Amino acid sequence: MMLSTALVFIMHLGFAGVETGFGQAKNTVNILFKNTITPILGLLSYAVVGFFLMYPGFETPGWFAFDLSGWKMFWFSPADADVSSGYSDGGYTYWTDFLFQGMFAATAATIVSGAIAERVKLSAYLVFTLFFVGLVYPIIGSWKWGGGALDDMGFYDFAGSTLVHSVGGWGALAGVILVGPRIGKYVNGKTVDKPGASVPLAVIGVFLLWLGWFGFNGGSVLSADPALVSYVLVITSLGACAGGLGGFLAGNFVFKRLDLGMMLNGILAGLVGVTAGADVFTPASALFIGLVAGMLVVFSAVLLDRFKLDDVVGAVSVHLTCGIWGTLAVGIFSTNPEHSFLTQLAGVAVCGAMAFASAFIIFYVLKITVGVRVSEEHERTGLDSHEHGIRGYTIVYDE
Amino acid sequence: MMLSTALVFIMHLGFAGVETGFGQAKNTVNILFKNTITPILGLLSYAVVGFFLMYPGFETPGWFAFDLSGWKMFWFSPADADVSSGYSDGGYTYWTDFLFQGMFAATAATIVSGAIAERVKLSAYLVFTLFFVGLVYPIIGSWKWGGGALDDMGFYDFAGSTLVHSVGGWGALAGVILVGPRIGKYVNGKTVDKPGASVPLAVIGVFLLWLGWFGFNGGSVLSADPALVSYVLVITSLGACAGGLGGFLAGNFVFKRLDLGMMLNGILAGLVGVTAGADVFTPASALFIGLVAGMLVVFSAVLLDRFKLDDVVGAVSVHLTCGIWGTLAVGIFSTNPEHSFLTQLAGVAVCGAMAFASAFIIFYVLKITVGVRVSEEHERTGLDSHEHGIRGYTIVYDE
Amino acid sequence: MMLSTALVFIMHLGFAGVETGFGQAKNTVNILFKNTITPILGLLSYAVVGFFLMYPGFETPGWFAFDLSGWKMFWFSPADADVSSGYSDGGYTYWTDFLFQGMFAATAATIVSGAIAERVKLSAYLVFTLFFVGLVYPIIGSWKWGGGALDDMGFYDFAGSTLVHSVGGWGALAGVILVGPRIGKYVNGKTVDKPGASVPLAVIGVFLLWLGWFGFNGGSVLSADPALVSYVLVITSLGACAGGLGGFLAGNFVFKRLDLGMMLNGILAGLVGVTAGADVFTPASALFIGLVAGMLVVFSAVLLDRFKLDDVVGAVSVHLTCGIWGTLAVGIFSTNPEHSFLTQLAGVAVCGAMAFASAFIIFYVLKITVGVRVSEEHERTGLDSHEHGIRGYTIVYDE
Repeated sequence: MMLSTALVFIMHLGFAGVETGFGQAKNTVNILFKNTITPILGLLSYAVVGFFLMYPGFETPGWFAFDLSGWKMFWFSPADADVSSGYSDGGYTYWTDFLFQGMFAATAATIVSGAIAERVKLSAYLVFTLFFVGLVYPIIGSWKWGGGALDDMGFYDFAGSTLVHSVGGWGALAGVILVGPRIGKYVNGKTVDKPGASVPLAVIGVFLLWLGWFGFNGGSVLSADPALVSYVLVITSLGACAGGLGGFLAGNFVFKRLDLGMMLNGILAGLVGVTAGADVFTPASALFIGLVAGMLVVFSAVLLDRFKLDDVVGAVSVHLTCGIWGTLAVGIFSTNPEHSFLTQLAGVAVCGAMAFASAFIIFYVLKITVGVRVSEEHERTGLDSHEHGIRGYTIVYDE
Repeated sequence: MMLSTALVFIMHLGFAGVETGFGQAKNTVNILFKNTITPILGLLSYAVVGFFLMYPGFETPGWFAFDLSGWKMFWFSPADADVSSGYSDGGYTYWTDFLFQGMFAATAATIVSGAIAERVKLSAYLVFTLFFVGLVYPIIGSWKWGGGALDDMGFYDFAGSTLVHSVGGWGALAGVILVGPRIGKYVNGKTVDKPGASVPLAVIGVFLLWLGWFGFNGGSVLSADPALVSYVLVITSLGACAGGLGGFLAGNFVFKRLDLGMMLNGILAGLVGVTAGADVFTPASALFIGLVAGMLVVFSAVLLDRFKLDDVVGAVSVHLTCGIWGTLAVGIFSTNPEHSFLTQLAGVAVCGAMAFASAFIIFYVLKITVGVRVSEEHERTGLDSHEHGIRGYTIVYDE
Repeated sequence: MMLSTALVFIMHLGFAGVETGFGQAKNTVNILFKNTITPILGLLSYAVVGFFLMYPGFETPGWFAFDLSGWKMFWFSPADADVSSGYSDGGYTYWTDFLFQGMFAATAATIVSGAIAERVKLSAYLVFTLFFVGLVYPIIGSWKWGGGALDDMGFYDFAGSTLVHSVGGWGALAGVILVGPRIGKYVNGKTVDKPGASVPLAVIGVFLLWLGWFGFNGGSVLSADPALVSYVLVITSLGACAGGLGGFLAGNFVFKRLDLGMMLNGILAGLVGVTAGADVFTPASALFIGLVAGMLVVFSAVLLDRFKLDDVVGAVSVHLTCGIWGTLAVGIFSTNPEHSFLTQLAGVAVCGAMAFASAFIIFYVLKITVGVRVSEEHERTGLDSHEHGIRGYTIVYDE
C-alpha cells in the first residue's frame, strides 16, 4: 500500500509531463505551476475537508455526511495514537488510507487542468481546485467508496473509472465549454494543431502514469493479497498495451500517419478502461476493452474538435469517454454475475450529473465574477512571461 | 516482486530516455514511437506466444516445448482462479511471473532498437520485434529459466547477462551489420560524432535503468528472502559504480576529455556485468567485474567504429560485450564451486549462435523483401517530419 | 526498506534534475557529470571508509571509531554469510543498511554541488566529495546514528535534518564563500537572474526528491511497522505541501510574481523541515513547520544575495536554513516530552561547527593548491565545450 501511495504520487509528475510536453513552449512555466500547486492544494483541501466528507465513519452515510470527530483525531494525533479502528489488515492503515485517497483526489483537478491549459486564468483554476477536490470529488466518492447510496445499489467501480476519471473528465468538459477554445485553434472551420513543446516530456509523462496506475489499481485491492494484486497488475498492463495498439491503429486510420500522440492517449485510455473492473475482467476481456478504449479516444478527440471543444491534451476523451466505457464494460464483461449493466449505467449517470453540474456552476460563477480567461494579449504572447517572469526553456550558447 | 515488476517496467522509459537523448533531434519522435510501441507489442506477443514457449509447464522441456493448456488458463482465468500450482512463495504468483518475465522479454527488442535507430524502417523493426520477443527470446530463455537443456548442463545466469542482455546484443549486432551505418557517420576513414538532442534525457534514462536494475536483479531472487535480495542490490550498485568509474577512466584515456557518455555507458556496462552472478559474487569481485566492464565498453565502442559498425547508443558494447564478460566472470569469481568456466563459455556460445543466427535471418529476409532502411532523403531530413508529422521539440516564443 | 533504498537512490536523479534545470544551458553537461559521478564516488568512498566510521560495531563509539573487522566482512562476504548480528528485523538487513546509508551519504556532497555549480573546478569538487562523504559525513553521523556522543546526550534527528541536510548545507555555505559568485551575478549592487536551461527538468527533479523523501523518511523508521511508516509519510507530505504553499506565498510577496522556483524550493524546504521529527510531529505541527520552512527559504535566499553569496539552486537556504529550523522544531513541537530545545540547539551547533570547519578547510586547502575555480574564459563560454566536448542540447532540424 505504501508503495502504491508513492506510485500514485508520481502520477502527478506524469500529468505534468504530458501537459507540459503537449502544451506550447510559451506556456510551459504556467502549466508546471498549475501541476505543482494542484497536488499541494489538493492534498491540503482533502486533509482539511474532503477526507472527512468521503469516509464519514463506517456507518451508512447515504448521500451526505461529515466526520467531525475524525477531523480532530486526524490533525492532533501523535504517531502512536490508536487510529486503527476498522483497519484489520496490517498493510493498510488509517494514515495510508488518507494519503492514498488524497493523492487520488488531487488527480481529479489535474485532469481538468490539462484540458483548459494555455488560456485559463490561474486564480480561477485554483478556486475551482479547492471546491472540486475539497467538496465535489469526496461527496461523489462517499456514495460508493464511503459506503453510501451507490454502494448500497450494487454499483461497481474498482479503482475509479467513474469516481476519479469520469468525475475529472466531466469537470474538464465543463471547463472546456465555459473557458472556450484557444485563439487560433479553429480557423475557418479547420482545426489547427498547436505543436507541443517537448514530445519526450509527454512520453515520460505517459510512462509515469502507467507506472502510477500499478499503484492506483494495485493499491485499490486494499489488502496485500499477492495473487489478486498481481492479477490486477496483469489486467492493467494488458489494458494499457491494447489501448496503445488501438490508439495507434485508429490514429493511423484517421490521420494517415504514425501518430505518437494518439498511441500515448490510447495507452491512457486503455488504463482508464480497465480500471473499473481490473479485478473482475479476464485477460481476454481486458484486451478487448483496452483495444476499444484506444480507438474510442481517437474518435472522441475528432468529435470534440468538430464541436470546437478545445481540449489541449485530450483529457475529456481519455478520462470521460473511456471512464464511461470502462464502467459500462463491468456490466458486460464482469466475471461476477451480480454486476448489472443497468446499475452501472445508473451510477455513471448519477455521478456524471453531479460532477458536470457542480463543475459547470463553479466555472460559471467564476466566469461572471473574476473571469476564467487571461487577456487576449497574454494568451498570444504566452502566460509565462506575464505571470511568472521566466521562460520554460533558455537554451542559448552565447552570452 | 510486484515492486520489482514496476521497476523493470520503468526500464522501458529508461531506454527511451537514453536513445532519445543520444539520438539526433530530427529523429526524436521516431525513437520515442519505437520505444513506446516496443513494450506494447513485446508484452502482447509474450502474452500470446512467448510466455508459453519459455515456461512450458514444469516438466523437462529440453530444447523446445509449448504449454497449450497454460495458454487457455492464462487468457480466460478470472481473478480467483487457482493458478498457483508450482508457486509456493506467497510473494511470487503466476501473474507476477508473467508480468515480470514479459517486461524482461520486451527489453530484448529495445536493446536492438537503440543500435539501429535513425535509419531503420519502422515496419521492419516492428516485424523483427514480434518474432524476436515472441519466439527467439523465449525459446532461448526456456533452455535455462524454463528448466531446459542449458539448465541441466549447470549453466548459470542469475538475471540474464546472457539470456536477456547478450541475446539483445546479438540481435543489435545483426541489425547493425545488415542495416548499415547512418549517412555521414564514417567519412574518409574518420568517425563523425552525431550530437545527441538532449544529454539530460540520456542521464534520466541511465538513472532509471539503474533503478530498474534493482527490480531486474532483486526480483530475480524469485522470493522475498530479504537478506539475499539486499545482498544482490549491494552487488548491483557496486557493479554500477565501478562500471561508471571504469568508463570515466577509460573514456578519459582514449578521448582526452571528461566523457559523460562513456561514464553513463560504463554504469550500464557494470550493471550488465554483475547481472549473471549478482548472488554469487562478493562485493570485492563485483567491484573488479564492474570496473573491467566499464573499461571494456569504451574499447568495444572504439573497435566497432573501426569496423564501421554504427551503433547509435552503444548497445552492442554495453549488452553484448559486457553480457559475455559477466557470464564468463561467473566461471571465474563465483563463490559456488559448482560453476565452471567451460560451462559458462558453452552457454554463451549456444545462446549467441541461436540469437545471432535468428536475428540475422529475420533482418536478412526483411532486407530482401520490404527493406530495412528508410530512403536517403528521409534519413537526411529526419524521420519525424516524414513518418510522424510532428517535431520532437518546438521551443519558440513568437507566434 | 528495499523500496526505500530505491527511492533514496532516485533522489540523485532528482538533484540532477533540479541543478540541470536551474543551471544555464552552457553548463548542462558539467552539472550532469558531477551529479552522475557523485553517487558513484560517494557510494564507493562510503563502502571503502565511511560505513565503518559511521557504524563502528554496536558498542559505545564516543566521538571516533573504525570497524576494521566489519570492513573485512563487508568486502569478502558471500551471499549466504551470516552478517545479521544486531539486525533483528527481517525487513532490515546488514546489506540494506549499507546501501540505504550509502545513498544518504552521497546526498551530502550533492547538496554542495548544486550551490557551487557553473564555476567550480571539477577536480576540486571530486576531491572534496571523497573527503566529505568518506570522512566528514560519517564521523558526524556516528555521533548520533552510530550510537555516539550526541545520541547519549538525547539529541534527536529522525531522518537527518541536521545529520544529512544541514551537514550538506554547511558544506555548501563554505563552498559558496570560498569559490565566490559567478561572473556577472552581482553587478552594481544588483542581483542578476541567470535563466535556467529547463524549468520542466527542475520540476521533475523536485517531484523525484519528494518521492525519494518517502524513502528517506519512511525508511528511517528502520522497521516495517506499517502504522508508523504511514504516519511518517503523511507528516512528510503535509510538510511538503505546506512548504510549497509557504514558498509560493512568500515568493509572491517578495517578488510580486507567481514564482515557480520559490514554490519548488518551498516544497523541498518543507520536506527538510519535518525530517528531523517526522515521527514526533502531529499533522497540525507539520503543517505549521512546513509553512514556516517554505517562507524561510525565500527570505534566506534574499539574505544570501544581499551578502553576495551566490548559491545556484538555493541549496544553503533549503538544506541549511530549514535543516536548522526543523531540528530546533523538534525541541518545540515534539510529542515526546524528553526532547529538549537546548539539546537540539547543542546538536545543531556541534554538527554545524564540525561540518562547516571541515568543509572550509578542505575547500581552502584546495583553493591555495590546485584552485577551486575554472578560468574566466571557461566560465563565460560554458564548462561543457571546454571540459566535456559536447553540448547539453542540440536541437536543430537542418543538416
